[in-house]
Amino acid sequence: MKALVYGGPGQKSWTDVPDPVILHPTDAIVRIDTTTICGTDLHILKGDVPAVQPGRILGHEGVGTVTDVGSSVSSLRRGDRVIISCIKSCGHCGNCRKGLFSHCLGDEGQSGTGWIFGHLIDGTQAEFVRVPYAENSLHKLPSGVTDDEAVMLSDILPTAFEIGVQAGHVAPGDVVAIVGAGPIGLAAMATAGLHGAATVVAIDPDEGRLAKSHDFGATHTVNPSNPEWIADVLALTDGAGVDVAMEAVGVPETFDMALRLVRPGGHVANIGVHGKPVQLPLQDLWIQNINISMGLVNTNTTPMLLRLVAQHKLPADKFATHHFGLEQIMDAYDTFSRAAETGALKVVLSRSPHD
Amino acid sequence: MKALVYGGPGQKSWTDVPDPVILHPTDAIVRIDTTTICGTDLHILKGDVPAVQPGRILGHEGVGTVTDVGSSVSSLRRGDRVIISCIKSCGHCGNCRKGLFSHCLGDEGQSGTGWIFGHLIDGTQAEFVRVPYAENSLHKLPSGVTDDEAVMLSDILPTAFEIGVQAGHVAPGDVVAIVGAGPIGLAAMATAGLHGAATVVAIDPDEGRLAKSHDFGATHTVNPSNPEWIADVLALTDGAGVDVAMEAVGVPETFDMALRLVRPGGHVANIGVHGKPVQLPLQDLWIQNINISMGLVNTNTTPMLLRLVAQHKLPADKFATHHFGLEQIMDAYDTFSRAAETGALKVVLSRSPHD
Repeated sequence: MKALVYGGPGQKSWTDVPDPVILHPTDAIVRIDTTTICGTDLHILKGDVPAVQPGRILGHEGVGTVTDVGSSVSSLRRGDRVIISCIKSCGHCGNCRKGLFSHCLGDEGQSGTGWIFGHLIDGTQAEFVRVPYAENSLHKLPSGVTDDEAVMLSDILPTAFEIGVQAGHVAPGDVVAIVGAGPIGLAAMATAGLHGAATVVAIDPDEGRLAKSHDFGATHTVNPSNPEWIADVLALTDGAGVDVAMEAVGVPETFDMALRLVRPGGHVANIGVHGKPVQLPLQDLWIQNINISMGLVNTNTTPMLLRLVAQHKLPADKFATHHFGLEQIMDAYDTFSRAAETGALKVVLSRSPHD
Repeated sequence: MKALVYGGPGQKSWTDVPDPVILHPTDAIVRIDTTTICGTDLHILKGDVPAVQPGRILGHEGVGTVTDVGSSVSSLRRGDRVIISCIKSCGHCGNCRKGLFSHCLGDEGQSGTGWIFGHLIDGTQAEFVRVPYAENSLHKLPSGVTDDEAVMLSDILPTAFEIGVQAGHVAPGDVVAIVGAGPIGLAAMATAGLHGAATVVAIDPDEGRLAKSHDFGATHTVNPSNPEWIADVLALTDGAGVDVAMEAVGVPETFDMALRLVRPGGHVANIGVHGKPVQLPLQDLWIQNINISMGLVNTNTTPMLLRLVAQHKLPADKFATHHFGLEQIMDAYDTFSRAAETGALKVVLSRSPHD
């Protein structure tokens, strides 16, 4: 089959590799119908994630069709259309029993659990993928949900909802500020209303992204290039600070922005993937009764979010800005990596119908 | 009257000052029967809290007898024995209605709210004190509770319980590590069982304090001078890390110790008062699903903790290690500031019965 193979920092190729095969009774093989590219894939290509070894097939998001299942898989069969979750979990270890699937303690061979696709095992930017713990990692696709919508449930919608909205304890009537209006930030805006957010403030230096924010639920937009940006946000809260500030970028500057916006008693929810430490001004914050959360998605809410997408209650159809055939993945990476110019949110790659 | 007056960094004196008087209809005047000294008072004397101006009477903990009340105070009367809470709050602003009394938005004159005693207004290390918002700041003392026990409810017991145990989300069966076995750390050990902690690990370099920890509920003690200290704690958790790590000191090193002990999905509860920023290794922590809390006590739980003290269900009687007359306060400060030598936990100062 063909796959997008990491060749070391700065290197990737769309090339021939062996087809995946069932290795464990809990595995399934899925033919990729639709996949996409995540900001994390760009980090890997920069060499920021040294655990990813040359030869690894990238990608952790996808929608596909089951082509084979291991001997212990009873709830899935050949031909099922499925969403591939970015998280692998055994479903029965101590952490899985707590719902902490992101830190599953099971270990399928030496490949680990949690986020392993396109990281520690081969991923979804390929014609086929082996999915470990298939019954806990695949979600059957109901009719009426398009692949464009469904692929947003592999990672960005549950990540933004669980790590931003839920870990941030968004509550009815809240003022929520979201620093970063990329796909994850937009997904947080799109799901903040599920817990009753009344005011959703998108903060991003890119005016194009700010304009799009309104389509995803933002009620206000603020450009931090404006020196008055903090006052503009606080004015929406009678000066008190926001109830929940989310960080959806992954650099120290945006984490600090979130800290500066939150009210006493409020929450800072970090969603971004960070590569550097940050400074926490605990000499000022110790007295502020704030809470700072962070983490990897557990996908506990994926089935619920899928139902809402099927009911057209979430704007999952609005993330896909660019479409490519799977074999055009090198062009898709180029478009995605130049998002500031191209306006790309999510680039969607689809299998050609005749394949 | 006599009072302990701050004279600027390094300076204090037990000296004559005017008696306090009712300034607002919501005030009460309380004769101090028992007071104590907090680590925060030592910080103030070092000059670490510049908001405290020379001439300020120090102290924010006390038990006393009401001698006068303002015209709007109906639930307290002369002769009532009361615990003076370290937090002042109006009880009716937006934050008070949320239970966030520590960040009360009311403002009794220019003196502020929250922690103001011995900080922004005159405090409790005196023969008498004016108590603003008396009905929300004083707790009537039931019979059967000694002053020694009751004064621990002004600050340390509710602070440790609310900011350590509750903000840290201690849950049944949890392994809890408490970094720092001073009065606040010991109060956290004493209250962790209220939410079902099964294993309570006291961590402190002072062997004397570790020995005392067992009287306050610690099930295990670990001395961080031992290079294997982290492994010793993790061994109590099958290597996974503790469910809740509390910081009860207030320096970057101990905050970092708490971060190193917590399991994925666990909680770090900062209780310490910090004077410097800390580094947060977000490049490692973003994926760990941890939660970091911090704050000033709201005293929501003071009435409940008082009931438990009255029922002898908390070891409130064990904190007072040294007793002085109020007029011996200079000696008491000396004993408290040399706690490592003297073994002092809380030094208790009492009005002479003949005064």
